Amino acid sequence: MTPEEFRRRGHELIDWMADVRTRVYAGKHPALSPVSPGWLRSRLPPSPPQSAESFDAILRDLDEHILPALSHFQHPLFFAYFPSNTLLASVLGDHVSTGLGQLGLNWASSPALTELEELTIDWLRQMLGLSTNFSGVIEDTASTTSLVALLCARERATNYGATRGGLQEEPEPLIVYSSEQNHSSIEKAALLAGYGRRNIRLIPTDRDHALRVDVLAQTIEKDLAAGAIPAAVVATIGTTGTCALDPVAAMAELARKHGIWLHVDAALAGSAMILPECRWMWEGIEGADSIVINPHKWLGAAFDCTAYFVRDPEHLIRVMSTNPSYLRVAADGQAKNLRDWGIPLGRRFRALKLWFLIREQGVEGLQARLRRDIANAQWLKEQVDAASGWKRLAPVPLQNLCVRHEPAGLEGAALDRHTLAWCRRINSSGRAWLTPAELDGRWLVRVSIGAEATERQHVEELWQLMREEVMKEG
Amino acid sequence: MTPEEFRRRGHELIDWMADVRTRVYAGKHPALSPVSPGWLRSRLPPSPPQSAESFDAILRDLDEHILPALSHFQHPLFFAYFPSNTLLASVLGDHVSTGLGQLGLNWASSPALTELEELTIDWLRQMLGLSTNFSGVIEDTASTTSLVALLCARERATNYGATRGGLQEEPEPLIVYSSEQNHSSIEKAALLAGYGRRNIRLIPTDRDHALRVDVLAQTIEKDLAAGAIPAAVVATIGTTGTCALDPVAAMAELARKHGIWLHVDAALAGSAMILPECRWMWEGIEGADSIVINPHKWLGAAFDCTAYFVRDPEHLIRVMSTNPSYLRVAADGQAKNLRDWGIPLGRRFRALKLWFLIREQGVEGLQARLRRDIANAQWLKEQVDAASGWKRLAPVPLQNLCVRHEPAGLEGAALDRHTLAWCRRINSSGRAWLTPAELDGRWLVRVSIGAEATERQHVEELWQLMREEVMKEG
Repeated sequence: MTPEEFRRRGHELIDWMADVRTRVYAGKHPALSPVSPGWLRSRLPPSPPQSAESFDAILRDLDEHILPALSHFQHPLFFAYFPSNTLLASVLGDHVSTGLGQLGLNWASSPALTELEELTIDWLRQMLGLSTNFSGVIEDTASTTSLVALLCARERATNYGATRGGLQEEPEPLIVYSSEQNHSSIEKAALLAGYGRRNIRLIPTDRDHALRVDVLAQTIEKDLAAGAIPAAVVATIGTTGTCALDPVAAMAELARKHGIWLHVDAALAGSAMILPECRWMWEGIEGADSIVINPHKWLGAAFDCTAYFVRDPEHLIRVMSTNPSYLRVAADGQAKNLRDWGIPLGRRFRALKLWFLIREQGVEGLQARLRRDIANAQWLKEQVDAASGWKRLAPVPLQNLCVRHEPAGLEGAALDRHTLAWCRRINSSGRAWLTPAELDGRWLVRVSIGAEATERQHVEELWQLMREEVMKEG
Repeated sequence: MTPEEFRRRGHELIDWMADVRTRVYAGKHPALSPVSPGWLRSRLPPSPPQSAESFDAILRDLDEHILPALSHFQHPLFFAYFPSNTLLASVLGDHVSTGLGQLGLNWASSPALTELEELTIDWLRQMLGLSTNFSGVIEDTASTTSLVALLCARERATNYGATRGGLQEEPEPLIVYSSEQNHSSIEKAALLAGYGRRNIRLIPTDRDHALRVDVLAQTIEKDLAAGAIPAAVVATIGTTGTCALDPVAAMAELARKHGIWLHVDAALAGSAMILPECRWMWEGIEGADSIVINPHKWLGAAFDCTAYFVRDPEHLIRVMSTNPSYLRVAADGQAKNLRDWGIPLGRRFRALKLWFLIREQGVEGLQARLRRDIANAQWLKEQVDAASGWKRLAPVPLQNLCVRHEPAGLEGAALDRHTLAWCRRINSSGRAWLTPAELDGRWLVRVSIGAEATERQHVEELWQLMREEVMKEG
């Protein structure tokens, strides 16, 4: 494809994407795709084309085969999982990234890639109210980043055991602590980092589903008495299930006392820290060793864009660095080598999508949208609290509600069937999209507010829909 | 930004990208950026804007500040590192991915994302001549993917030790074997996976810089005799330094005999396996447990697009899987959960950029370009071999040459200074871009051929430039 063909086809695709987004914002595509497993594969050829195909054929397939098999996080009645807004200014930043074909291997391979990442992540640090004690980098996802954090914790606890005989040489078990409401990625990261399931302590939570720091303290003492080595504590700010807030300050105090690595998973709720009135939620954050926040969630950056902040970049670099001859350049020592800040060697020019977003919105624009969403969640909370037959199962510090419709006389497995049935009816209607989740052994429905297109009227529409659907029986 | 603003600005940016690419293909931007460390940061505001900025200001900054700080892998005289072509059809596929804002968490969150990835990676499997014994998935980079492979090897060797007490409970050291010419990412992966530097065996190479399988066999026997557990062998097809080809068939035989995990790193050279005449280079590949190939290199997909093929997907899933309630959907069991095929939970719609590429080029189009590049490398090899004062330091099976200009009387450190100086003169001229590398303790210059715009005339131009520059003294 020549640049002139790219120009012509690029214009067509920009128009196509603008049209799709217009329809999605207007709710004209189903929120959740109605297709069945295998639908798309059965419609596409099982083998690659030997000869070049026309671009028209590709564009036709986008409409006929791809579009019906999409679900839309940008739909105004999207209330599933978490907001992943992919704001259009960020989309354009990512388009530039891909179009320029830059590849970060070292500073010289794309000076702008390294320096704009340094700059933009520092803008974000300032927006979040973090001190200059933290340095940041952009990673792909929170899962990968929490793995990096637990690897760094492992190496600090063993005084760089990887440079000797590895984890096998450590005589005492290394322990990782986290709330039983933590995200699945924390256990996955701990297992991949080699700690072993037996060395993961899931600490019970209080009635607000936040980690009980008294139990954490006791558990640490017990492990110490048994000769184990507490290596990492993970605090979650905004748990996936209920948006619970672990007590960071008290956890930081314990971590400091025992020399334990404190990792803070603020993947979702971290975006809200651009609002000064929300920063009480992670009070004590300056005591963290590492923090992960996903600007590709509520903040609106195109996926994938995860921010990782650390207090000791030298430690991160020591754990992650490689320096083969073919990657050395004259600028080494004068410029950051971002390959030494995470697992991958090569990197996309990810900063562009965050830079475009922050500039096009301004800090105030981002703040105003998040405040709108928090107000919408508070409005829905009031409705649920006032409605008979409805129960709210967790506090609503931000934009996520946990609700259940509990008709008189229904409990246990029958209540679960009811909950899953009305949620499924809404989702399969295509009109809105919600996520069921388990809490204390019972199903509930999460209403996660924060799509860019979601205004008060859409939350009202959802609430109407919920009240209608719970009355039907499937 | 509304869809209509996106449309207008998107058209402007498509034109801007088409113009930049046109100039890059014509060699009108320097291959290697001439800026110094800190140049870009000093020109941009250190704090984020409080209010929204005009999009015109962002576009102006692209021209004035970003563009001069770019290096170009698409330049016709790009001969550095490895080809990373980012063909324009693939760029458009990635644009669609970002614009649609799809997010893979499970099948239902974007049925097309999962199913097109299944389809496209299976197309690639067929193109590479791999049997249906292999299943594939798209990951971000070879570094991450080799980490996944070594984690899977660790868990197989320990019979899923992670589900018990982790690596610390294994009494016998687990050993990883690879050539001393392997890529830095292999050692990094082994250290991160917890094996420890003492348990990494770097096997010496033969005069073609390929792993010596006799030494490998002896080393394994010695470790076994000492009670250690050989866990993983890594073969490289196309080493970064010299494009050496480790003897996969013999290594597979050893791996099979001792029950060791065989991981094949064909990150660069794997693309060439779409050419049947090149498949002798990885003869025995069907004995691999895992294979990594980077379509974002020579094949031309936009970064990041790494293909990972495994023989036992159930094992991969068991090591990587998580299944919290909030991610379960009705389609589980009928559809792949790609989150269980690697480290990250969320995923981009990466298949689009590979699907667009394969369709727009056709298998024959991709094959023709790679054959052109191989022929260009053979031409340059003949010139170097015939020229007095020049030395070639490794075979040229594909597109990478290792050369040195060795004037009479120059050796040792003085020869190194000469090598680095003429390479630096070429790079700082902006006219071409080459990578110096160390081999057997001496510097050489790698000439890696394979940019899309690189025709025979550009290789001739490089050869002329090389012969001129070695005559100058810096």
